[in-house]
Amino acid sequence: MTQALQIDLNSDSGESYGQWSMGDDAAILPLVSSANIACGFHAGSPAALLTTLRTAKQLNVAVGAHVAYPDLMGFGRRNMDIASDELTADVIYQIGALQALAKAAETVVSYVKPHGALYNTIATNERQARAVIEAILAVDSRLALVALAGSPLIDWAKAAGLHTVAEAFADRAYHADGMLVSRREEGAVLHDPQQVAERVVQMIIHGGVQSIEGTFTPIQADSICLHGDSPGAVAMARAVRQRLDAEGIRVQSFGVRA
Amino acid sequence: MTQALQIDLNSDSGESYGQWSMGDDAAILPLVSSANIACGFHAGSPAALLTTLRTAKQLNVAVGAHVAYPDLMGFGRRNMDIASDELTADVIYQIGALQALAKAAETVVSYVKPHGALYNTIATNERQARAVIEAILAVDSRLALVALAGSPLIDWAKAAGLHTVAEAFADRAYHADGMLVSRREEGAVLHDPQQVAERVVQMIIHGGVQSIEGTFTPIQADSICLHGDSPGAVAMARAVRQRLDAEGIRVQSFGVRA
Amino acid sequence: MTQALQIDLNSDSGESYGQWSMGDDAAILPLVSSANIACGFHAGSPAALLTTLRTAKQLNVAVGAHVAYPDLMGFGRRNMDIASDELTADVIYQIGALQALAKAAETVVSYVKPHGALYNTIATNERQARAVIEAILAVDSRLALVALAGSPLIDWAKAAGLHTVAEAFADRAYHADGMLVSRREEGAVLHDPQQVAERVVQMIIHGGVQSIEGTFTPIQADSICLHGDSPGAVAMARAVRQRLDAEGIRVQSFGVRA
Amino acid sequence: MTQALQIDLNSDSGESYGQWSMGDDAAILPLVSSANIACGFHAGSPAALLTTLRTAKQLNVAVGAHVAYPDLMGFGRRNMDIASDELTADVIYQIGALQALAKAAETVVSYVKPHGALYNTIATNERQARAVIEAILAVDSRLALVALAGSPLIDWAKAAGLHTVAEAFADRAYHADGMLVSRREEGAVLHDPQQVAERVVQMIIHGGVQSIEGTFTPIQADSICLHGDSPGAVAMARAVRQRLDAEGIRVQSFGVRA
Repeated sequence: MTQALQIDLNSDSGESYGQWSMGDDAAILPLVSSANIACGFHAGSPAALLTTLRTAKQLNVAVGAHVAYPDLMGFGRRNMDIASDELTADVIYQIGALQALAKAAETVVSYVKPHGALYNTIATNERQARAVIEAILAVDSRLALVALAGSPLIDWAKAAGLHTVAEAFADRAYHADGMLVSRREEGAVLHDPQQVAERVVQMIIHGGVQSIEGTFTPIQADSICLHGDSPGAVAMARAVRQRLDAEGIRVQSFGVRA
Repeated sequence: MTQALQIDLNSDSGESYGQWSMGDDAAILPLVSSANIACGFHAGSPAALLTTLRTAKQLNVAVGAHVAYPDLMGFGRRNMDIASDELTADVIYQIGALQALAKAAETVVSYVKPHGALYNTIATNERQARAVIEAILAVDSRLALVALAGSPLIDWAKAAGLHTVAEAFADRAYHADGMLVSRREEGAVLHDPQQVAERVVQMIIHGGVQSIEGTFTPIQADSICLHGDSPGAVAMARAVRQRLDAEGIRVQSFGVRA
Repeated sequence: MTQALQIDLNSDSGESYGQWSMGDDAAILPLVSSANIACGFHAGSPAALLTTLRTAKQLNVAVGAHVAYPDLMGFGRRNMDIASDELTADVIYQIGALQALAKAAETVVSYVKPHGALYNTIATNERQARAVIEAILAVDSRLALVALAGSPLIDWAKAAGLHTVAEAFADRAYHADGMLVSRREEGAVLHDPQQVAERVVQMIIHGGVQSIEGTFTPIQADSICLHGDSPGAVAMARAVRQRLDAEGIRVQSFGVRA
Repeated sequence: MTQALQIDLNSDSGESYGQWSMGDDAAILPLVSSANIACGFHAGSPAALLTTLRTAKQLNVAVGAHVAYPDLMGFGRRNMDIASDELTADVIYQIGALQALAKAAETVVSYVKPHGALYNTIATNERQARAVIEAILAVDSRLALVALAGSPLIDWAKAAGLHTVAEAFADRAYHADGMLVSRREEGAVLHDPQQVAERVVQMIIHGGVQSIEGTFTPIQADSICLHGDSPGAVAMARAVRQRLDAEGIRVQSFGVRA
């Protein structure tokens, strides 16, 4: 008897702020199983977060804390040379804020996914990585950490006792060694929904994709990130979701195993 | 057999922000039983909050969320005509942020005390009061609400099922009807530590103090606020504490009943 | 010999912030003669402001400082009980910041229009009004002040020596006494572009419009505000502009008299 | 006939924010000739800045814009990987804000000194350096740029047509090659007021100081930085000033040549 295939699809959400809107949470959340919800430091005013959390609850989508550097003006996309104790406290603060809002929306935060520059930095910067790991352990060691597939962060987090979720990107090209092709290089980002959907299926069924060099590269993918902040992104998410449904691959949060 | 008299003393703390210091938490916290800790909206950067929470834990002082309007530049002292759903979400966010930091410091948030302009506004403004009450209920209905003794807020909160703590001010003059004398009037603020200590004892033993009009005015005082943000304040807190010790009145958080 | 009729049309712009967009400055600015540009306190990150200022310069649109309360989360729409010296300094700061960015864009700030809650408050609150007037005088007494037509603010500002510009709203209903119908009342906001365009022409040619009570009400209109933050708003602005062009009414900033 | 020796002494000021105080502007400003005044991004609420500017005006101290990364929580001390166009706009914004406040205080901004992490970064990072240089040129090319003595920034700024002011540090040890000894190394910071005062005199009279390796190292010092944010700093500034007065060395802003 074979086990049904399943995958988690995650998307950023809750990125509005006061009068400013970003992304279309109502359109993207029905397509994914996990919502990375901003925590106020790069985006997400409390009232906007509460609205998104209620939508996530209604759609039965798992909720993660999308923690970030304190940089509203830069949307958390600028590297910041922050002290370890400051980073730890900032991450604890953000997780807690989202936890309480989640409780008010009758849901719970089940994972942490660092956002933007913090995501990229801690994939390889051990000092900042340890500051984030320490924060999660201090709040709730059962919170999973979503991290770049193949990055050292996954090993550091596992060694510290965290449950890790390896994340792959549906619309990004990979090198033969499993690293992402830099956005500065041509062909780094894929735009064709059918091609992206096809690669998602490959990742799940074959455990990898064709690299930009032409060879097969293995990619561990516990969760696949779909972008949610443009109309094109919604179309792509829809294509991926339809393809997965057609293949009989269940879309389900990593937190829930059948 | 008589029950020993006891009172809660509370003080604002955690009001530093990044490189800016305010108050002397290390000096004031040993003298009180409850610490109203800022939550980042009027003061309190996360790293500073964590330090204060650890001090509170070490000293076995109860911790409250000192929630405020989002107004760092105005230190939460400016009235703000905020929408109810925004206020509710803001308060939930702040409580949650402090809860997680408290957990990291191995303590817990046991009450909520609104700060500054929010404290004064919701004492009598029912719309904003209900927004704060709703926030507390959404996070944890066991959190007590510290509110101005004799204010309508206490009735609204009780009716909503919250545990309320009536707060009196040791260094403020009262009118015969139990209302605080406005700071704009002469004699509104008392500066003599011995006189303030004497009034605290009166409040506890006699259930009230002499009003500015000369008559006795009853004041319900479950908790007495001591200010912590000046050297004079520390001296006053010390005088109050010594007097209570001398009178055999136990200083203990309202959350703990012997 | 008759003088050609002319009017100033103004619109809010520069309201993006970092990654968040608001309004379509490129669509609305070609239709108006004056751009009220945010100054960073309610909206407008510096880089976004510089882009808008360059567009305004290119289109030969006059530039005004859209000063606001320090309230990014509330978009400057929440009343704030700010001290007079704080308000004065806040307004000076904002005007100066925009002046320097304007210089970098090879244009100049020629007027000040308070935004949102500040606009409404100082129309009638003399204390805050005087704080704003003082700020303008301190920076440059030649800066005009755009204020609600018929409001006491206009008299206070004139008495203080400021050049004032009376502003009317194209899409708002007026009472017989010249006051705006509150947005809470039915019929307060007009949505039909042709009707709005017709009223603009009436204001210019007849010096007033039909009130919601049915009688003619005189409205002084040195400048007419068009909203710019929705697709519908752009369509309405286009209708107004086309109608004015058809009537031979010149659209020109109040700062420039033929 | 010999020319009288003179030097500029500068100190950070205007670093209070709302209710938080930092430094003792009233104590340090009488001792220096130039005040580096915060511009709101790392410190300095507008009302606080206006107070400091008035003090500077009263004491006839030259005023500089102490521009910084947008990082209130980190006090501008954290490196930030900011885009060039964002940095340029941020610096223009800050200079302009301070210019208007300076005008309100009847003084003028005569120079720009980057603060904290920005100061250190642009000393050697050409991309960010050029963004700051561009900002100054866009606002007013007559504004001088205060930069680390011996740094590449001075050459870049000069080549771009800016007037540069080489800055030395009175209380820091130097290597034989003219570089500052890192704060992480022992002996990097000098604490004895008399020794610091002696080194200031050496810099002015001999054009350099004894390096930590023991050899004489030439240091160009158009301006010498004194720290102002501690009681010890005021004492040190006083010692330096007294020594300069005793030596007949005039303390005067670089902007003013006798």
